[in-house]
Amino acid sequence: MIEIPTPWLLFLGDVEDAISGKTSLAIAYWRPERCVGQLRLEGCRVDVGLEDLSAEEARSRGARAMIVGTVNPGGALPEHWTAAIVGALEAGLDVASGMHQRLADVPEIYSAAQSHGRRLFDIRHPSESLPCGTGEPRSGRRLLTVGTDCSVGKMFTSLALEKEMRARGMKVDFRATGQTGIFISGSGICVDAVVSDFIAGAAEVLSPAGEPDHWDVIEGQGSLYHPSFAGVTLGLIHGAQPEALVLCHEPTRSHMRGRPRQALPTVGECLEGVLGAARLTHREARVVGISVNTSGLTEAAAHRYLAELEEEHGLPAVDPTRTGVGRIVDALDPPAGSGS
Amino acid sequence: MIEIPTPWLLFLGDVEDAISGKTSLAIAYWRPERCVGQLRLEGCRVDVGLEDLSAEEARSRGARAMIVGTVNPGGALPEHWTAAIVGALEAGLDVASGMHQRLADVPEIYSAAQSHGRRLFDIRHPSESLPCGTGEPRSGRRLLTVGTDCSVGKMFTSLALEKEMRARGMKVDFRATGQTGIFISGSGICVDAVVSDFIAGAAEVLSPAGEPDHWDVIEGQGSLYHPSFAGVTLGLIHGAQPEALVLCHEPTRSHMRGRPRQALPTVGECLEGVLGAARLTHREARVVGISVNTSGLTEAAAHRYLAELEEEHGLPAVDPTRTGVGRIVDALDPPAGSGS
Repeated sequence: MIEIPTPWLLFLGDVEDAISGKTSLAIAYWRPERCVGQLRLEGCRVDVGLEDLSAEEARSRGARAMIVGTVNPGGALPEHWTAAIVGALEAGLDVASGMHQRLADVPEIYSAAQSHGRRLFDIRHPSESLPCGTGEPRSGRRLLTVGTDCSVGKMFTSLALEKEMRARGMKVDFRATGQTGIFISGSGICVDAVVSDFIAGAAEVLSPAGEPDHWDVIEGQGSLYHPSFAGVTLGLIHGAQPEALVLCHEPTRSHMRGRPRQALPTVGECLEGVLGAARLTHREARVVGISVNTSGLTEAAAHRYLAELEEEHGLPAVDPTRTGVGRIVDALDPPAGSGS
Repeated sequence: MIEIPTPWLLFLGDVEDAISGKTSLAIAYWRPERCVGQLRLEGCRVDVGLEDLSAEEARSRGARAMIVGTVNPGGALPEHWTAAIVGALEAGLDVASGMHQRLADVPEIYSAAQSHGRRLFDIRHPSESLPCGTGEPRSGRRLLTVGTDCSVGKMFTSLALEKEMRARGMKVDFRATGQTGIFISGSGICVDAVVSDFIAGAAEVLSPAGEPDHWDVIEGQGSLYHPSFAGVTLGLIHGAQPEALVLCHEPTRSHMRGRPRQALPTVGECLEGVLGAARLTHREARVVGISVNTSGLTEAAAHRYLAELEEEHGLPAVDPTRTGVGRIVDALDPPAGSGS
């Protein structure tokens, strides 16, 4: 597990659109209490709504780490960001990044960290040695989000479920499986960066045996129906061993993300597919709800769509933003012996 | 791709059983023409049937590489093998290993290779940078073996199919996805050692677009029904994009390999499951046969079992050793426009 000291300065570099800045945007949305400000270079067009601070200012307000909260295809660190990252280390901040290229592989960054006694966190790269999965039943309760496609709101739904469950006094932890989720929760394992023999094992380590009334809400990755990433999804389903699955969906897609010729599966196909997969390691696994990102629909169309899904599949269908996820939490079985 | 210079000296160390020596045994069985001898340390109880040679003797008979043809749980190189490996490098042989622990990470071995100008091949570790899979349709014909469980004969069946197809004058290549297969074919990618984001991409690289009448026979890995490794299997199915699948099975297992509490799937379940998975990237995928390792049955029971499978599933059911795989090759569609 990765534990990055808080609070944080969010580094946006000079990214030009919300997709490139999505890690910072999600951190500021879900964990505002952990953020003291943002650091933007000239030309940056993304604003997460926090005060603009230099590394020194952030440090003097208590910041302990700077998060490189950006994504780009290929995951390389732009060379012209090196000076700002070195500056943060000099100012007394640790630095964390979720890019594929390691901070520690940039010589100036590595030597600045060494000479200032600061830590570098390359969170995309699992540091611990992982076991193969076993599939052995374990205690505690687990919910996993799955998707009809990539980027349909699995992390958002997971965090919304955690928040709702916590507000109800339930014992719950969000378990992150991707870089943004790891920054938000402060720990986790990027399962897409694990050697493939150990995907299920990573999910087992991530959501270990727990108290009988404790829930792990595990962030899903990819989709069983995405031709690039389905192996990651299946290993995660098997290792997470969920008793409850929530299917996430975005209804306006015309094709699988990044694959223009790959048709989307239907919600019904996905429900059947994920359940079949999950039952290999949890015989009583069931889908407890559908979570839809309806931001592409009007309010009226969104509610109509959710009502149709409910009717067709007999499951609560929600939009975490428009309706909240309370009805999915209602649908979770009470712990055995609770008398309700 | 890994191209190890031939012919080879097979190194068995001091392994005590056939499972530990299975890589050498399979190489000697499938590629005797590549082997000049075996090198065994005191205490070794496995004999692949080749002449015992020292590294110097092997070199003088033309050997160009020594293969560490053993497996063990964890994949560490026993320390007391270092001297023999260094000796092979000194004698002028390159050395190749499929263990998880890299030859190059053992200082004595690394420096001996450097000073003698020899190469080390750590074939478990993909050396090339791999892309994510795309699922885009590609030319050429592809057959993938899949299994009800791990270690049920997928590699053996694939090699038997390649041999039979070649004997019939078909254009065919065996595509290796594991260490033993890579040694046998001289090239390939260990998909279980690939970062999980790139499993499907690795399979696409391994079995690229080809001539319309050329077959890739791709070695399967794991099983969709094995809780430790199914993610690898699914990514491989999607990336391999097979039009033809052969299901491999071992009928005497009481549980999934290494998982005493995990029941085996039925052959019928597997046929349905692998077909559903394969159709994501090849809509006309079909299962063309069942290949059974009947070595645990008597001759009469084996033939009865194969007949029952044929009857139940309407597919040719063979044992590569007892019956050969000809009836599966018969079941492959002729190339479009061949007039037959």
